[in-house]
Amino acid sequence: MNAIIITIGDELLIGQVVDTNSAWMGNRLNELGVSVSERMSVSDDGDAIKEAVHRAIQKADLILLTGGLGPTKDDITKVALAEYFGAEMEFHEPTWARIERLFKRWGRSSTPAHRQQCYMPSNAILLENKMGTAPGMLFHINGKDIISMPGVPYEMQYIMEHGVVPLIDRKEGKTSIIHHTIRTAGEGESRIAQAIEDISDLLPAYIKLAFLPGLGQVRLRLSGIGEDSSALEKEIQSFSTKICARLGDVVYGFGEKTLEEVLGQLCIEKNIRIATAESCTGGYVSHRITSVPGSSAYYYGSIISYDNSVKVNHLNVSPATLKDHGAVSKETVLEMLQGLLYTMPVDAGISISGIAGPDGGSLGKPVGTIWIACGNKTEQETLLINLGKDRAKNIEYAGIIAMDLLRKFVMRQ
Amino acid sequence: MNAIIITIGDELLIGQVVDTNSAWMGNRLNELGVSVSERMSVSDDGDAIKEAVHRAIQKADLILLTGGLGPTKDDITKVALAEYFGAEMEFHEPTWARIERLFKRWGRSSTPAHRQQCYMPSNAILLENKMGTAPGMLFHINGKDIISMPGVPYEMQYIMEHGVVPLIDRKEGKTSIIHHTIRTAGEGESRIAQAIEDISDLLPAYIKLAFLPGLGQVRLRLSGIGEDSSALEKEIQSFSTKICARLGDVVYGFGEKTLEEVLGQLCIEKNIRIATAESCTGGYVSHRITSVPGSSAYYYGSIISYDNSVKVNHLNVSPATLKDHGAVSKETVLEMLQGLLYTMPVDAGISISGIAGPDGGSLGKPVGTIWIACGNKTEQETLLINLGKDRAKNIEYAGIIAMDLLRKFVMRQ
Repeated sequence: MNAIIITIGDELLIGQVVDTNSAWMGNRLNELGVSVSERMSVSDDGDAIKEAVHRAIQKADLILLTGGLGPTKDDITKVALAEYFGAEMEFHEPTWARIERLFKRWGRSSTPAHRQQCYMPSNAILLENKMGTAPGMLFHINGKDIISMPGVPYEMQYIMEHGVVPLIDRKEGKTSIIHHTIRTAGEGESRIAQAIEDISDLLPAYIKLAFLPGLGQVRLRLSGIGEDSSALEKEIQSFSTKICARLGDVVYGFGEKTLEEVLGQLCIEKNIRIATAESCTGGYVSHRITSVPGSSAYYYGSIISYDNSVKVNHLNVSPATLKDHGAVSKETVLEMLQGLLYTMPVDAGISISGIAGPDGGSLGKPVGTIWIACGNKTEQETLLINLGKDRAKNIEYAGIIAMDLLRKFVMRQ
Repeated sequence: MNAIIITIGDELLIGQVVDTNSAWMGNRLNELGVSVSERMSVSDDGDAIKEAVHRAIQKADLILLTGGLGPTKDDITKVALAEYFGAEMEFHEPTWARIERLFKRWGRSSTPAHRQQCYMPSNAILLENKMGTAPGMLFHINGKDIISMPGVPYEMQYIMEHGVVPLIDRKEGKTSIIHHTIRTAGEGESRIAQAIEDISDLLPAYIKLAFLPGLGQVRLRLSGIGEDSSALEKEIQSFSTKICARLGDVVYGFGEKTLEEVLGQLCIEKNIRIATAESCTGGYVSHRITSVPGSSAYYYGSIISYDNSVKVNHLNVSPATLKDHGAVSKETVLEMLQGLLYTMPVDAGISISGIAGPDGGSLGKPVGTIWIACGNKTEQETLLINLGKDRAKNIEYAGIIAMDLLRKFVMRQ
């Protein structure tokens, strides 16, 4: 099957918004074995939308549109599609009932624009959108499927997963494409590539290995294509096993599972309660840990001690330590960790203090100097990392390294 | 002048790479007053490239291509363009001399692929690329300019600034495009649209209003096009002033400034120190506030009291309150706030407690029930919000509403 993606919105053309929707959809379609032959972005203009759809229909079986389905005036995709297909706009009672129900729950009142939003092209099959008020629309014309979705990423993703993916699965006879992702933290791409070079040299032509580097993490993706999906799966699994044995505890998980999910799973398995004490990462680690549903079972909380007075009052860090060694020091992160472990009834924790930047560095402690401590009441380890000048990157990188240290510590308990 | 952007590469279609080049070029062209009518992405395939160029030439005066100019096999843009324009490929001696010079400096030897790279379509004017080995190419055909650049962002950006921008400046008698963005929080798109409907009805045809909704926030973008940029700017500013007067403190800022940056700026102006006590948002608010460089000047920290014991021990919440009213209650967030204000030497704070989901709700307190308190030692307000079942959305939405409450509180001091 062959697909074309059309994203709609002036903000995409003037570069105010980067078109991540296209990338997400392209990636998802590729996983399903659907090839994307083209992407287009057009403005919020009825004629431009109609012309793009017309052109796409000549060349593809599946056309995915995002953008232009909200309740305000600049949202005109729906009307353009109705005009293109020669359909009437009809009021859709169930959508209206749902919007009224939502507003009632939010304790607010809907507006005429919301009622307007319930007019749909008469030939559209509506696709449920649990994440927002505008449903997706499916048009099935001469064996081709045209699907229009809102431009808000999580709404589009919901409709893709629940409406579009099942449709594609039904339509496809398909050769199998199998992807298997190994997730690592704390090592760079080239060192990993070098360590497994002899294994990757043995990969057959129909199995590809790609390195997908991220901040503090590298994903290794094995992708295979073949007729016999179970044989292919077995072969990929065998390569994965060899790679993991070589890389050891640098590998933290597989597939879409994040570092914080793996950490949470380990805490549950080992019945270990954790807490954190953050300074320069300012709540980033706590936010990542608590983004996992059910984290309240093992995560107690965090003392975000941005100001030194909080380090002293809530973590019992000694003012003399702060004076003699500074807030960014091995001594301070160790006292932060000990203070944390004595003030919360937990089994393990981490503490982080550093200079996130872009300012605040000195000759001896430049921006990007970050200390981490990890452990329990009887056993602690510390780590010094030296990063660059980018604040957001320093926060994220330090957070990942800290969570990874804690993961390895919990694993050993 | 009207432009179309074409980006080339399979990696863009399968979503392995997000197309930031398009956004960068769109933004730069827009600054120059060139309107981008369409963007396309096509695969590394000669026919697809030729067809895209053919289509673009019918509709635009300026066509910018990126991708497919490097030394590897999948780079075929150059050949496709030569074929499309019926030109020969000619060896370009100065480019080869430059590549040899570069490799000599790097102490490495060039490959046959690099020599191949020096064959250029005979009708192309070459545009210097100081950032890499492949020059840009300009084709001037029937009054239209077609420019092909490498896909590596900094190489493309170099050729844009040094080759393309001067070309546009020469060609343009130019009209100006002015954008002005108003940022709001806490109200939905339709309610805002309704509140300013009479103002937006007065907009002339050359000024457009677009609503760009996000979670808990809506941006209103006024875009105008005209000859006289200062008159246009004045007119847009006057509409912005009317809209802001109507919307009141729902407007928190303008342009690219984020809510946390505006909050920080207010704290600095009013010399107010702040802190937070988070439960269900788990550090998200603290992370957002500390993502702003220099936030340590006004932000003291946070008690992330995920477990009730942390609420009792660090925020002095009474166990009786937790027992009688529950952790998600007006009474608890008020005690969290008071505890915070007595334990940190700050002038204002917020506290948040709720059920982020997807589990943990009950009949009386369903998932998405979130209480927020905001204030100082003498004056506190509380807010109950009722959201849906999506954990990530609930955390982000509650965080934004909480920061916005604090912004309004600080503004009033």
